[in-house]
Amino acid sequence: MTDPLAEPGRMPSRAPGRTGTPSSTATSLLTDRYELTMLQAALADGTAHRRCVFEVFTRRLPAGRRYGVVAGTGRFLEALADFRFTTTELDWLADERVVDDATLDFLAGYRFSGDVRGYAEGEVFFPLSPVLVVEGTFAEAVLLETLALSVLNHDSAVASAASRMTSAAVDRPCLEMGARRAHEEAAVAAARAAVVAGFAATSNLEAGRRYGLETIGTAAHAFTLLHDDEEAAFASQVAALGPGTTLLVDTYDVRRGVERALAAAGTRLGAVRLDSGDLGVLAQEVRAQLDAAGARETKVVVTSDLDEYAIAALAAAPVDSYGVGTSVVTGSGAPTCGMVYKLVAREGRDGALAPVAKASTAKTSTGGRKAAARRRGPDGRAVEEVLVAGDDAAVASWVPDDEALRTLHVPLVTDGEVDAAWTGPGGVARARDRHRASRDELPRGARRLSADEAAVPTVTLRLDGRD
Amino acid sequence: MTDPLAEPGRMPSRAPGRTGTPSSTATSLLTDRYELTMLQAALADGTAHRRCVFEVFTRRLPAGRRYGVVAGTGRFLEALADFRFTTTELDWLADERVVDDATLDFLAGYRFSGDVRGYAEGEVFFPLSPVLVVEGTFAEAVLLETLALSVLNHDSAVASAASRMTSAAVDRPCLEMGARRAHEEAAVAAARAAVVAGFAATSNLEAGRRYGLETIGTAAHAFTLLHDDEEAAFASQVAALGPGTTLLVDTYDVRRGVERALAAAGTRLGAVRLDSGDLGVLAQEVRAQLDAAGARETKVVVTSDLDEYAIAALAAAPVDSYGVGTSVVTGSGAPTCGMVYKLVAREGRDGALAPVAKASTAKTSTGGRKAAARRRGPDGRAVEEVLVAGDDAAVASWVPDDEALRTLHVPLVTDGEVDAAWTGPGGVARARDRHRASRDELPRGARRLSADEAAVPTVTLRLDGRD
Repeated sequence: MTDPLAEPGRMPSRAPGRTGTPSSTATSLLTDRYELTMLQAALADGTAHRRCVFEVFTRRLPAGRRYGVVAGTGRFLEALADFRFTTTELDWLADERVVDDATLDFLAGYRFSGDVRGYAEGEVFFPLSPVLVVEGTFAEAVLLETLALSVLNHDSAVASAASRMTSAAVDRPCLEMGARRAHEEAAVAAARAAVVAGFAATSNLEAGRRYGLETIGTAAHAFTLLHDDEEAAFASQVAALGPGTTLLVDTYDVRRGVERALAAAGTRLGAVRLDSGDLGVLAQEVRAQLDAAGARETKVVVTSDLDEYAIAALAAAPVDSYGVGTSVVTGSGAPTCGMVYKLVAREGRDGALAPVAKASTAKTSTGGRKAAARRRGPDGRAVEEVLVAGDDAAVASWVPDDEALRTLHVPLVTDGEVDAAWTGPGGVARARDRHRASRDELPRGARRLSADEAAVPTVTLRLDGRD
Repeated sequence: MTDPLAEPGRMPSRAPGRTGTPSSTATSLLTDRYELTMLQAALADGTAHRRCVFEVFTRRLPAGRRYGVVAGTGRFLEALADFRFTTTELDWLADERVVDDATLDFLAGYRFSGDVRGYAEGEVFFPLSPVLVVEGTFAEAVLLETLALSVLNHDSAVASAASRMTSAAVDRPCLEMGARRAHEEAAVAAARAAVVAGFAATSNLEAGRRYGLETIGTAAHAFTLLHDDEEAAFASQVAALGPGTTLLVDTYDVRRGVERALAAAGTRLGAVRLDSGDLGVLAQEVRAQLDAAGARETKVVVTSDLDEYAIAALAAAPVDSYGVGTSVVTGSGAPTCGMVYKLVAREGRDGALAPVAKASTAKTSTGGRKAAARRRGPDGRAVEEVLVAGDDAAVASWVPDDEALRTLHVPLVTDGEVDAAWTGPGGVARARDRHRASRDELPRGARRLSADEAAVPTVTLRLDGRD
């Protein structure tokens, strides 16, 4: 058998069965080819049935970041329910000779029957935090690597950035509007992750439909330009959407725009939106203009390429809410989390679970199953991320005897059964609550935007007395 | 009617019909809410039926980049075919009162019946290049804004980065392996975009299935760690995948790993993969070790956090192919393109198409329909990006009388009918060829990696004699 990795460069000339769009709702091919080739070899030699523990963690936070936010857990569990190999997938794998018949037979019957536990979605994390732990046979657990990482790396990157924005905005709502700057399905996940991290609403309709999120939006510059003049555009919008609508006032001249907005909607105008220019100065001027006209309840929304720093810089400006686009959906400079899915323990020849770890340069990690807890100080604020390691049975059954330690792992999948409480709109609401509580527990200073180390150190507590 | 933008912060407590996964294959809700509210107002005042020209372009390239690569055009056309409002979407829009009944009626019958033209997928672009032009009534064209931008901004960002990598790699194949660092569906699109820009293959199975791409991959460190020792792991892999496979040799000690790899597969071993350490030095050592053992045909694949600079730095190292992950799927520092979808002309009260443009600060753009061409010098290399503007009828029918000008727009959708040649696996192959030819036409020096201005200036040719 020729290994295509050794001789790449060929583009198959025959067309596959499909031409562009998914024909199956299965998520099983959202997977790297090597998961399946490893499975084939392990099925043949018998190691596929060894019990394994895989751990998801990141070695470091993006430069300068003080904490990360776990997001995507609910989406991973939703995708897990669809992780099966239907005829569509099996036929393609057979046609392409990705794996042999014995492996295809195994895949045809595949359902994950193991356990998954992890940090509750919305929880903050630090370097080496074991945010997800997957336990099962090698065969069933290895197949989930790519999907788990895709979901968690993307969603956590967005939530980690979004949390800095909602933190900088303090009590002013942040609104997610970045769909156009992200892959169309990533945009749906990004809206969800932003809401987990405290965003109030999204412009994305599918995110609203799929996850029960509030959606927002009224009009773009194109609407004003479509009309013969700004007066006609504003009159039309108020007629259709009511005076409580938000009018975009910067297509031509902002001062004239505000005058026309008030002429169209009166002092009951819901809001004006500013999408360009020096937002701090403009917001001051517009606020004064609105107040002078008696429109004291009319709000000011700003939306031009904002990030956490721009939001913080507008803290003293009379702004009522922030619309954030590019920056939140691209993780504000850190579009992925660098999480890895590592085998940390596996059953050996003797049937006992043994810790394993890669030993070569640079990428070392600690083997063995781990529990995790956050140690709080007397003021209730986090002081340490505690990884509990050592004897496997002791770690598996560990319960802290110290009330300063809050355990971080919750069961997500038990014997293949997904806990639905973490999925769907309910899961998003729960994650949002968890994030708020978890962020409130961070030490003072942990939420400043300037570059610094992780807000708390990650330490290891060994249950077997070794260092 | 209350505008939610003016009073955000509420999370609806009722659950929607769905709990997490899509229940419809329609792409119509991958859309910002304001597209629909604008539609409602425009339907009510009659302007919805005005003929409009929307243009997609970017104001600038990412800092230091010399050209961009159009990608995603085929995916946009595929998604356009599914851009319809079924009961699933209409019911949700009605339940949420996003728009009124008249608008729902319009949406129920919606099919895009206009025209789309644009740069062929794979073509390089520069600031202001009109890479996509959508023409139809306001109602039908405005709805496509978010989807068109999501697809083009993401896919072009990946292809633009990927093109720098394949350029730096010269004749050595680049292999896309970044699925785990991107949203799971974005990963499929990223694999496709990377291949458009010259990548030879992808690890992503779904991308392989959907677009007919070659897939690659054999084993991860987990496979070695699963086994009792490296010898057992290599023996198993060779037994299952043949001696032509690629063995990952850096789990423990690279020199020992190569020895064991040769012991397992003999000198017919397909390749060894290095995934950590100082790749340039290691590649030299491993190549010497392989050659000394007589495995002169065994290739060396490197895969550790590579980007275009790391690839260039390995040019003199005995490396046979580059596996690229994070960097390509996140656009190597520029994860989105900043493309916008702007109304540039619309029918006025008199029935004539008139240019329009936003007039306020900073974000100015030129109104009016544009054609585009690339001017080549005597050596056949590009010297200018030429935007053709002016009288609408003259622009619409413009054909260059100068053979130095290569026109850039091709018809993609005519009277609502998608040209299928741009979609599916055939579209990818065509885009890859276009990219190769287009990049070869760039001026000498345009492909260097160091930061610089756009490789050619963008100039405007006015057909009405004005500047």
